[in-house]
Amino acid sequence: MRRSLTALSALLLLAAPAFAEDVSNLNPGITTSEILATAPVHWVSVDQIAASLEGQAPMAVGFDVDDTVLFSSPCFYYGKMKYSPTSEDYLKMDAFWTDIHTNNCDQYSIPKDVARKLIDLHTARGDDIYFITGRTRGSGGETLTAAIKKAFNIEKMNDVVFTASSENKVEFLKDHKLKIYYGDADSDMKAAIAADIRPIRVMRAQNSTYKPEPKNGKFGEEVIVDSTN
Amino acid sequence: MRRSLTALSALLLLAAPAFAEDVSNLNPGITTSEILATAPVHWVSVDQIAASLEGQAPMAVGFDVDDTVLFSSPCFYYGKMKYSPTSEDYLKMDAFWTDIHTNNCDQYSIPKDVARKLIDLHTARGDDIYFITGRTRGSGGETLTAAIKKAFNIEKMNDVVFTASSENKVEFLKDHKLKIYYGDADSDMKAAIAADIRPIRVMRAQNSTYKPEPKNGKFGEEVIVDSTN
Amino acid sequence: MRRSLTALSALLLLAAPAFAEDVSNLNPGITTSEILATAPVHWVSVDQIAASLEGQAPMAVGFDVDDTVLFSSPCFYYGKMKYSPTSEDYLKMDAFWTDIHTNNCDQYSIPKDVARKLIDLHTARGDDIYFITGRTRGSGGETLTAAIKKAFNIEKMNDVVFTASSENKVEFLKDHKLKIYYGDADSDMKAAIAADIRPIRVMRAQNSTYKPEPKNGKFGEEVIVDSTN
Amino acid sequence: MRRSLTALSALLLLAAPAFAEDVSNLNPGITTSEILATAPVHWVSVDQIAASLEGQAPMAVGFDVDDTVLFSSPCFYYGKMKYSPTSEDYLKMDAFWTDIHTNNCDQYSIPKDVARKLIDLHTARGDDIYFITGRTRGSGGETLTAAIKKAFNIEKMNDVVFTASSENKVEFLKDHKLKIYYGDADSDMKAAIAADIRPIRVMRAQNSTYKPEPKNGKFGEEVIVDSTN
Ligand SMILES: [Mg+2]
Ligand SMILES: [Mg+2]
Ligand SMILES: [Mg+2]
Ligand SMILES: [Mg+2]
Repeated sequence: MRRSLTALSALLLLAAPAFAEDVSNLNPGITTSEILATAPVHWVSVDQIAASLEGQAPMAVGFDVDDTVLFSSPCFYYGKMKYSPTSEDYLKMDAFWTDIHTNNCDQYSIPKDVARKLIDLHTARGDDIYFITGRTRGSGGETLTAAIKKAFNIEKMNDVVFTASSENKVEFLKDHKLKIYYGDADSDMKAAIAADIRPIRVMRAQNSTYKPEPKNGKFGEEVIVDSTN
Repeated sequence: MRRSLTALSALLLLAAPAFAEDVSNLNPGITTSEILATAPVHWVSVDQIAASLEGQAPMAVGFDVDDTVLFSSPCFYYGKMKYSPTSEDYLKMDAFWTDIHTNNCDQYSIPKDVARKLIDLHTARGDDIYFITGRTRGSGGETLTAAIKKAFNIEKMNDVVFTASSENKVEFLKDHKLKIYYGDADSDMKAAIAADIRPIRVMRAQNSTYKPEPKNGKFGEEVIVDSTN
Repeated sequence: MRRSLTALSALLLLAAPAFAEDVSNLNPGITTSEILATAPVHWVSVDQIAASLEGQAPMAVGFDVDDTVLFSSPCFYYGKMKYSPTSEDYLKMDAFWTDIHTNNCDQYSIPKDVARKLIDLHTARGDDIYFITGRTRGSGGETLTAAIKKAFNIEKMNDVVFTASSENKVEFLKDHKLKIYYGDADSDMKAAIAADIRPIRVMRAQNSTYKPEPKNGKFGEEVIVDSTN
Repeated sequence: MRRSLTALSALLLLAAPAFAEDVSNLNPGITTSEILATAPVHWVSVDQIAASLEGQAPMAVGFDVDDTVLFSSPCFYYGKMKYSPTSEDYLKMDAFWTDIHTNNCDQYSIPKDVARKLIDLHTARGDDIYFITGRTRGSGGETLTAAIKKAFNIEKMNDVVFTASSENKVEFLKDHKLKIYYGDADSDMKAAIAADIRPIRVMRAQNSTYKPEPKNGKFGEEVIVDSTN
């Protein structure tokens, strides 16, 4: 038996409204200023990035992988539960990296829409696209390059660069004269800044297992709107 | 000489990006969770309130005045500057109240759109509408009733009830068997709760001079969306 | 060579500001009202749900699984790419369901924080918790029950109920006299409404592969704040 | 007689939930993406503006008046009701402008907090501050200069510049070599762009009578966060 909203509200009216001063902060409420509050962030859209590159010759650009191009937390959740359920040690275990990179764990990684747009933009410009990850390669083959190539059907695919430390990431950015580096982590932004190139932040999805969440815009860098998926 | 956004960005690229680790919190940045964060508030639209009253006989309802029906901060800003620039004493001075209520200061008070919608709703229902204010009447005539009548071209207008204290507000709500009381202040919500009637929060405009801003929804009461003007 | 923000801005000032009337909607901008705009949704926190159940005897409650308890999109992304890359047919293929339910694909499914809080709440109340999914069981064993039990270390675990159609979902809710049903999909809310029990919406994560995204609060139901992960 | 939230919810549970498919869009609801949606705007804080000017010699800067420095809608609401209740003709009537500028109507205009911060910043820098308004002077004295001087207790106060048309506004910006122009209206941003100086947007309060609301950031200009009051 379904009744319209009125019936419920009629009941509400009959019953004396049961509202209590919020002693237990059960109802924190919200002020007008809190609704209006805005963080001083330089938000940009993919279209604005495209406009900022108009008329410039093809260039080399780089992407971080995890939480920038792929939502790969499933592999990391699987790896933690299997190799070190009560700690983050799995990240230092060759067995974990070899497992995910030889068993194509990234077939469970969901490509990010914002990456699709950015890869299409730079491909159309004839830019040279590099994927540079802080993952450890592991001691076997790696299925990540193929997974990214397939997910974004990239024709001219450079092998994923496994840097495993920020120093080599900065080295790579400099050696290959990249102009822009897209990433979700503070370490990505710091690497771009250290290499004197344009850092652009892609937002990490809220349900990523990589915590704590970064403060997007923390270095005054451009942050792409709606880039969490 | 105007240049397209590209020119600016070209400059940006040439110039080493000047991004600094945010030592001085100059760039607080924002996390994905902070963007998603939502206060547990029971938001309602005027249409939902209308639906909740469908089929119910005409009833008596009440409105607070300042920051609920009228943005009257101009009169209070004027009064403070004139009668007690360095304190809130003007609120206890008969001269102030008599001044604003005999010189029709409310000709500078801006009617709120949400009040227009609510007054139209209750008028169409044949409800009996009371305006109950915590203002002090002052020792002269009062131009507030006429100002509200004119602003919302109300035909059947009850004189504004000057309660000057919450006790008499609760008394009035009970004596006249009001069913709903709309207000922006915590004191309005408490009065309705004390009178066992339905409290509905109208949000105070951010530029109201009446500080601090209330936590809308603090009593678990319904809060009208987009009700700041 | 890093420079403070000033250097960049100094450059900005030297370079004629390159701002263009927004012909191509490159800069849509935003109005104050758009920032203030609020949807008329009845938001609730887990604490408020707990308070609403205080003093009530233990009861039976139910949870949808996918995007309510588990972020299981990885299994569905994997399944689509493997069984029907260009369509949704995989959802009608026994091979897919048997694959994910016999190979414990849910080891890649990330448990949702909001589910952890709700399960803990109802467990502490001594409530009887059912997990009711629209998934098809497949023609083999099923590893989903164990995966949920392990993810939320539930002691008294009822086997997951595979309903595969909303009718049986409504039947189950009625037969077992559940009082509350938590879900992310409209079909979950409709099932609860049809069974005359309290529907509470959990928000689907934005990067779920299950599109289009539901309009949370579409039935006037309570929606849990911050419930996307 | 007040009851805790539980009593209400108990009632809610007893009463069959009265939820209706939202045929009349009574409950529009909201998607996760709509909550996350962000406009691509270059937001800046007053501190960031200050940092961008560090080390630079004192300069001339300008402010628009209405809805940038003062919430002056009360005078315009008063003027419309008195001189042309059913049209905007009052804006073309010398009687209106002479009235408000000789009777110090701006004693009802509320100073904006953001203007206080900006004026303090530029005063501390030794900058030369001009207030340039599109208001018509009227054929009498003008009390606006004194009202602004008093509201922000400015020592070195330049008389308000009444431009009454955007052309002379651009002329003034150029002749006096201003470096920055703060304003809420598109016309303010266009004037700054036409004069090749840095346009910075201050957001108009939602309850300003000057409609329609501008799209802040529409020219790719910097927009000051939390600048509506
Ligand atoms: Mg990353
Ligand atoms: Mg009030
Ligand atoms: Mg679901
Ligand atoms: Mg203005």
